[in-house]
Amino acid sequence: MTRRVAERSWRAATASCEPAWTTKIQYPRGSFGMATENSRLILTRRPEPGRLADCFDFQRSRLEEPGPGEVLLQTLWISVEPYMVLAASGALAARPREARTRMQSLMVRYAAGVEIGEAMPGPAVCRVIKSRHPGFGEGEIVTSYSGWQSLALDDGSLLRKIPAGPVPLPAFLGVLGIPGLTGYAGMKVIGAPRGDDMVVVSAAMGAVGAVAADVARQAGAPTVGITSTERKRLQMVEELGFTFGADRKAEDFSDQLKQACPRGVDVYFENVGGMVWWTVFPLLRAFARIPVSGTLTNYMPGAGEGERDRVPELMKQVVPRRLRIQGFAVFDYPELEDEFTEVIGDRIASGAFTYVEDRYEGLGSTPQALQDIVDGKTSGKVVIHLAD
Amino acid sequence: MTRRVAERSWRAATASCEPAWTTKIQYPRGSFGMATENSRLILTRRPEPGRLADCFDFQRSRLEEPGPGEVLLQTLWISVEPYMVLAASGALAARPREARTRMQSLMVRYAAGVEIGEAMPGPAVCRVIKSRHPGFGEGEIVTSYSGWQSLALDDGSLLRKIPAGPVPLPAFLGVLGIPGLTGYAGMKVIGAPRGDDMVVVSAAMGAVGAVAADVARQAGAPTVGITSTERKRLQMVEELGFTFGADRKAEDFSDQLKQACPRGVDVYFENVGGMVWWTVFPLLRAFARIPVSGTLTNYMPGAGEGERDRVPELMKQVVPRRLRIQGFAVFDYPELEDEFTEVIGDRIASGAFTYVEDRYEGLGSTPQALQDIVDGKTSGKVVIHLAD
Repeated sequence: MTRRVAERSWRAATASCEPAWTTKIQYPRGSFGMATENSRLILTRRPEPGRLADCFDFQRSRLEEPGPGEVLLQTLWISVEPYMVLAASGALAARPREARTRMQSLMVRYAAGVEIGEAMPGPAVCRVIKSRHPGFGEGEIVTSYSGWQSLALDDGSLLRKIPAGPVPLPAFLGVLGIPGLTGYAGMKVIGAPRGDDMVVVSAAMGAVGAVAADVARQAGAPTVGITSTERKRLQMVEELGFTFGADRKAEDFSDQLKQACPRGVDVYFENVGGMVWWTVFPLLRAFARIPVSGTLTNYMPGAGEGERDRVPELMKQVVPRRLRIQGFAVFDYPELEDEFTEVIGDRIASGAFTYVEDRYEGLGSTPQALQDIVDGKTSGKVVIHLAD
Repeated sequence: MTRRVAERSWRAATASCEPAWTTKIQYPRGSFGMATENSRLILTRRPEPGRLADCFDFQRSRLEEPGPGEVLLQTLWISVEPYMVLAASGALAARPREARTRMQSLMVRYAAGVEIGEAMPGPAVCRVIKSRHPGFGEGEIVTSYSGWQSLALDDGSLLRKIPAGPVPLPAFLGVLGIPGLTGYAGMKVIGAPRGDDMVVVSAAMGAVGAVAADVARQAGAPTVGITSTERKRLQMVEELGFTFGADRKAEDFSDQLKQACPRGVDVYFENVGGMVWWTVFPLLRAFARIPVSGTLTNYMPGAGEGERDRVPELMKQVVPRRLRIQGFAVFDYPELEDEFTEVIGDRIASGAFTYVEDRYEGLGSTPQALQDIVDGKTSGKVVIHLAD
């Protein structure tokens, strides 16, 4: 795999529908010849911690022409997401389940993980370049689950058309995609903030957290975002509309949170786990709601080792403070998808909701982008640009 | 404090509105002279584990005549409840809070604990023997929060009249009292079982668990009760209407549960914590609801010591299984009280719902009754008979 040292360029938002802040990392564009010559990044071995980028390699192949009911897709943007660490490490078990809706099918695909020798599956934005499917015409832009490759043959069952509009395409992988819907559903249904509730969102600049925070903002609730540098903390307040920011790596993180939430926390959108969880925990007020969309730190090998058991500490507070800790998955809320697309799409288009995107360039940059997520080096939603 | 060795007598239900099974422990009746000579059990020191019965002593005093707006109560039945261990040990902090309703006032009293030299407060069934309160007439029977004493002067704010009917009075301290409403509200609002949901109830013969299980039964859900002896396990199924029973002290407890719930558990009413929690935990299905009304094992000193931290294990499952873990307190559901009294009262009167009561005799038996609860020696709701 060829890779060049990354060049980062930070810039502020220029147009209202552009993300507030974009990290660009330059990689050589994948060069491939005919439209049916496919480049894929396949998993060559299960990763050890910190070595993700070495576990993938290019594989080129020639695709068949699409058969009846199939389309040929050209990948424009690829999504890189934290759960892919689990998929690559083999932690997701490929248990086939019944799926009747597009959302259920997506869930099955997410949960299936990836085997050695396979291309990493995952969300992408693609252009239909050949179609023998009655539902999709050539030139249409769709979201797919075609993963880390430059082309894909697809039966259309997981595709969703992207309407023409002012919103940039990669947003449909982040704040307007599955991660955004995750934040939307969790905050709306479980967090359910009311006017003067104090809301705290972890990983608040990622697509999940950014949309969760925007739902709270729309409800009029003061919202604290947790991020991982002082610069990002300031940016959250000055550019992204958060009421307060807190830097989880700062020595006075706990004090920052206490100052931001003097009366305590009514909704904590839990996206992280570990130390952040335990810092927010003492601040939770009576009847606090805690939507849990994932707790990456708890999935790491060795989590919980050499510590005292803190479950009693947790459960002891659940009753007197009437805490509601509720896990959820985006796939449980297909009925919210249209509403979400409209509400958040309008908010982005009107400039009411700005967000952060980290754009990497070229298929070859994808494994490093995933490593950067694990290392906490990224800022917002991570997307890979392949073609226009 | 005088105390005689207990005599237990087991008997099956004879009348439809009698509890299915009653433990009677004989103690000398408290003897007191005039109607204004009060006997109280006061806390003489904070208990160490296992020595509760030695921490209380009798105190006799003469009460004043009721003033304007007051009533003089004669105690007929006293409730003994697990939270009183916390109250006696000083773990409940006396923090005054605003209370606008009777329920809120009750909550404040529950949370206030008890100081050395004070009589243990708590629910009781009393007869109004003198009244200068416009709302209560002499001879009326009420529930109060007058605690471990034979008489009480009361301003009426926490009293609730008991309607005449076929249900025995001590039921209003258990299955028709605050514990029953706890089970009712938690199962109804948070557990919310539907027809073929598999429901598991811990401490299932206590008043909280018994009513929680009856709500599930009324919804048509198969219900497993967890108890602590083989005899009680059989009784739950043969006399009390449980679909299955499981004995948490049995060596094959885990297998008993698995056999009772081959498809897993949809609702777990959590009343205990500790080992029972971790045995049920692997069986929880997707979208399982876990109403938590208290977890006594987690309140014990030293809980969690010398163990690995199991919070990661817990939180790791919250998302993929979409668990809803929700603490609650009965005081949050005043609007359910009338419905609860009617529904469960009718169920008891018609014989559709039978329950277990442990009756102790005499004020002096109260501390030992509390110790018996802690030691797991009681079966059902624990009440003390003082007078008819």
